Amino acid sequence: MRPVPHLMTLADLSPKQISRVLTHARYLKQVSQPWLQPQTRTELDLRMPSQSLFSKSIALLFSKRSTRTRLAAETAATLLGGRALFLGSDDIQLGVNETVRDSARVIGGMCQGIFARVGDHSEIEELAKYSPVPVLNALSSLWHPTQILADLLTLHENAHLFDSTLKPLPTDPGYLARAKRFIPLPELRPLTIAYVGDSANVLHDMLVTYPRIGHNLRVASPEDAKYRAPKAVWDRVVELECDKRIWWGKDPKEAVQGADVVVTDTWISMGQEAEKEERLKAFEGYQVTEELCRQGGANPDWKFLHCLPRKQQEVDDEVFYGPRSLVFPEADNRKWTIMALFDMQFGKWDLGKKEQVEDDGETTQ
Amino acid sequence: MRPVPHLMTLADLSPKQISRVLTHARYLKQVSQPWLQPQTRTELDLRMPSQSLFSKSIALLFSKRSTRTRLAAETAATLLGGRALFLGSDDIQLGVNETVRDSARVIGGMCQGIFARVGDHSEIEELAKYSPVPVLNALSSLWHPTQILADLLTLHENAHLFDSTLKPLPTDPGYLARAKRFIPLPELRPLTIAYVGDSANVLHDMLVTYPRIGHNLRVASPEDAKYRAPKAVWDRVVELECDKRIWWGKDPKEAVQGADVVVTDTWISMGQEAEKEERLKAFEGYQVTEELCRQGGANPDWKFLHCLPRKQQEVDDEVFYGPRSLVFPEADNRKWTIMALFDMQFGKWDLGKKEQVEDDGETTQ
Amino acid sequence: MRPVPHLMTLADLSPKQISRVLTHARYLKQVSQPWLQPQTRTELDLRMPSQSLFSKSIALLFSKRSTRTRLAAETAATLLGGRALFLGSDDIQLGVNETVRDSARVIGGMCQGIFARVGDHSEIEELAKYSPVPVLNALSSLWHPTQILADLLTLHENAHLFDSTLKPLPTDPGYLARAKRFIPLPELRPLTIAYVGDSANVLHDMLVTYPRIGHNLRVASPEDAKYRAPKAVWDRVVELECDKRIWWGKDPKEAVQGADVVVTDTWISMGQEAEKEERLKAFEGYQVTEELCRQGGANPDWKFLHCLPRKQQEVDDEVFYGPRSLVFPEADNRKWTIMALFDMQFGKWDLGKKEQVEDDGETTQ
Repeated sequence: MRPVPHLMTLADLSPKQISRVLTHARYLKQVSQPWLQPQTRTELDLRMPSQSLFSKSIALLFSKRSTRTRLAAETAATLLGGRALFLGSDDIQLGVNETVRDSARVIGGMCQGIFARVGDHSEIEELAKYSPVPVLNALSSLWHPTQILADLLTLHENAHLFDSTLKPLPTDPGYLARAKRFIPLPELRPLTIAYVGDSANVLHDMLVTYPRIGHNLRVASPEDAKYRAPKAVWDRVVELECDKRIWWGKDPKEAVQGADVVVTDTWISMGQEAEKEERLKAFEGYQVTEELCRQGGANPDWKFLHCLPRKQQEVDDEVFYGPRSLVFPEADNRKWTIMALFDMQFGKWDLGKKEQVEDDGETTQ
Repeated sequence: MRPVPHLMTLADLSPKQISRVLTHARYLKQVSQPWLQPQTRTELDLRMPSQSLFSKSIALLFSKRSTRTRLAAETAATLLGGRALFLGSDDIQLGVNETVRDSARVIGGMCQGIFARVGDHSEIEELAKYSPVPVLNALSSLWHPTQILADLLTLHENAHLFDSTLKPLPTDPGYLARAKRFIPLPELRPLTIAYVGDSANVLHDMLVTYPRIGHNLRVASPEDAKYRAPKAVWDRVVELECDKRIWWGKDPKEAVQGADVVVTDTWISMGQEAEKEERLKAFEGYQVTEELCRQGGANPDWKFLHCLPRKQQEVDDEVFYGPRSLVFPEADNRKWTIMALFDMQFGKWDLGKKEQVEDDGETTQ
Repeated sequence: MRPVPHLMTLADLSPKQISRVLTHARYLKQVSQPWLQPQTRTELDLRMPSQSLFSKSIALLFSKRSTRTRLAAETAATLLGGRALFLGSDDIQLGVNETVRDSARVIGGMCQGIFARVGDHSEIEELAKYSPVPVLNALSSLWHPTQILADLLTLHENAHLFDSTLKPLPTDPGYLARAKRFIPLPELRPLTIAYVGDSANVLHDMLVTYPRIGHNLRVASPEDAKYRAPKAVWDRVVELECDKRIWWGKDPKEAVQGADVVVTDTWISMGQEAEKEERLKAFEGYQVTEELCRQGGANPDWKFLHCLPRKQQEVDDEVFYGPRSLVFPEADNRKWTIMALFDMQFGKWDLGKKEQVEDDGETTQ
């Protein structure tokens, strides 16, 4: 028996595996988009995306609401021929009516994968310990691996914005439908990526990922320890030697110096509403604006990412709805990257394989 | 790029388009019903309904509960090969965690259609403004277009009850399964339709629809302005010259005079429970009964419609469960008319097309 | 028209029909499991399970939460090509906004089956009275037929544990995928089955089932009438002459005498939390342990069943997680037995048929 392939954080994957997920996500996007167009007849000559979830069910265990992650998962499972079963906190409360161990075994006996958004990270570790099927982290107190994959796919698809020698990828669905071959995902030049805000799960997966694939990370967060990465995270950062390419301070202007990409997240996550005033005060001056980035000396062509949902306090309308913003393509890419993981982890269990993977003729290396 | 086809009220459609939706609904019903029979083997020679939602996902954004509309949408999407994703008020609260604009863009980036039951009508207008995919009104404070389509399909299917020269449509699923051709939907003779009750979304779509397709409308509602159509609705009525075939008074007996069809709706909609006593008083004498219609001089063969759920106060058991009642076929037809809209608006974007549409051999004109 | 086949309790089925359901469940399990394995390509030579729910929708009306039953139903419907629509107490409240009669007719007009977990048993009887499609009891105050089918399938699959002349069934999915024929479900030798705990729905379906198929039942429950079977249940027991093979007392040790299988259930069901202290007291000494069974003189090879979720008070960890425990295969079998009923009752309406049933070459007798 092959070991069950769980995924808790991108720190669990090698740079080569991350690259394989991104290439596969782009491939699935190219193949799927023509199917999603309005049409009066089924186009019989369209290539099918992988149907590795045919007849299969994936449990979505979500202890907290999450529109983007949920929709991405449900629509991705549908495209792969399978079914996502959403179980919210009204449907199941992990550890309340029975042990997490028993729930993991029962759910894993009926479903072929578990995509879990838990509270404390230890809960998903417990699920993975006892589940007979793969567990994929949809968001935990420590990590948010699927968000960073979506960010990376978005940056690769927009590599031409950072390198004038590259051409934009074709976007016309008709063109994609007629394309006989996979149009490769462009390489990214080494970037400087600035994160301005709270040290939370989104940042944590950036910390263990970007430095390993050639990008520099500059982080500004308030000095108080609660806004800095917890030991469990920083240990992984050091273990992977990512700290060498990370600058960390408290001044957002200093953080955006030379930045090609500026990223932020909400300052007040679900469950932190009680600390609202304290947090608003701690993040004074952290709002991402044109002026902040000009004063800080960002690359004049800097682009903006945000995992959503967005509040105005952390980024103003000019940036958020302006031409620098990649936030909506980034949201769309939650679907394609989650689809790649569902296919590779839940459908085929082949992300861990060393050999080259072929998907109905596709070459993913 | 074709413009995105939204639908907020039947006032947005021409009589010809309404007729096309009804014909297509009947066609889908004829083709689908044999598939839904008990069977021990798959009948390989059955014609498939349109699979225009294959691999696609439709978001059902329902800020209020609605069993009929929800079940109709979910079962219709399944028959079209797609998937409806139900998002209730526990799953998403429009405008609370992020702007409606951002939600519209994100949901429209992952799903291929949005079927929305909102509170205030302005919310669905805002959704339609920013969504990259079609938005269809499942119910708003002002309009309820899918209900009136179901009512119309029910009246057409029962046209023989109003015209003794017509024969009933065949209903046997075995006969339908073997039918080689589409059995056309009978024409309706011009009817007098009486609505007795509150001026709410169901009535509003009747006001902008029935007069345009040849029927007379007689309405009784209490005199207070709150029980009369709001200006936004009446403006559309006048603009479409529907007012010429509408009689409006306060006496239910006068309203049912000559009525071929009597329609009512609940007096106390969701959210109006606080006004219960006041409303019960305002609608005294409005209960639809045999006696009311006899005294008022309705056509002795009058039939009864109600969108459900029904309370006894607005119609008694004798009428509701009696032979005049078409309420359950009317409820069933929510499914087939919603299926037609899902196919035409979400799957094919072709309701707005002027030319004749062919659906695998079917002629819809 | 054939009469609509409802199922409220196993008392409604003959021993032959119960045997057909079990055989069919095992057949579906053998055929389905290979489809649920990780795979890099669709195996084109795999046999399909029945697709009798293709394009069809099954309503899951659950007035109370139930993870196992819900997941079993949703994943089973998916394997049969159909769609389960979960409606919890937030989605629909039977009898609140409209009569159960109206809801039954409306839901049955849109869906092809109703799987209902209600409160009082009279609710599901009312549903069945008015529904135009089959109603299957997912759990009521009186009965729990699908649980006992899962228990029986588990016992048959493990018949070799009770009879050393039998060989275990093959479990390797690769072997099952290559098997050209259905591997028959082994016969069970007559067993002594002990139930130690509250007289609730699980026990009630044991009472009307096990004696009819050759097994002896020994029950221990506290003396108070509230822990004994209600009249409506006992009447069915006597009518089916099951009482002759039932011993009933108050001493758990006496109950497990000679037991091949020991079964228990939670002492405090949903809604009984207020009586917690009283119930804990009434069931003192009822915890299933090695010592209880040794002292009571159970068969040294006794096995353990529990419908889950489990609390430690009714069975200790040594038994629950030990080698006697069949609880997780039992939970898995909820899926396959529910799938068999969905196929036979909702998809084909053929469980009531007298003649032998053939399923794409399968022989179910």
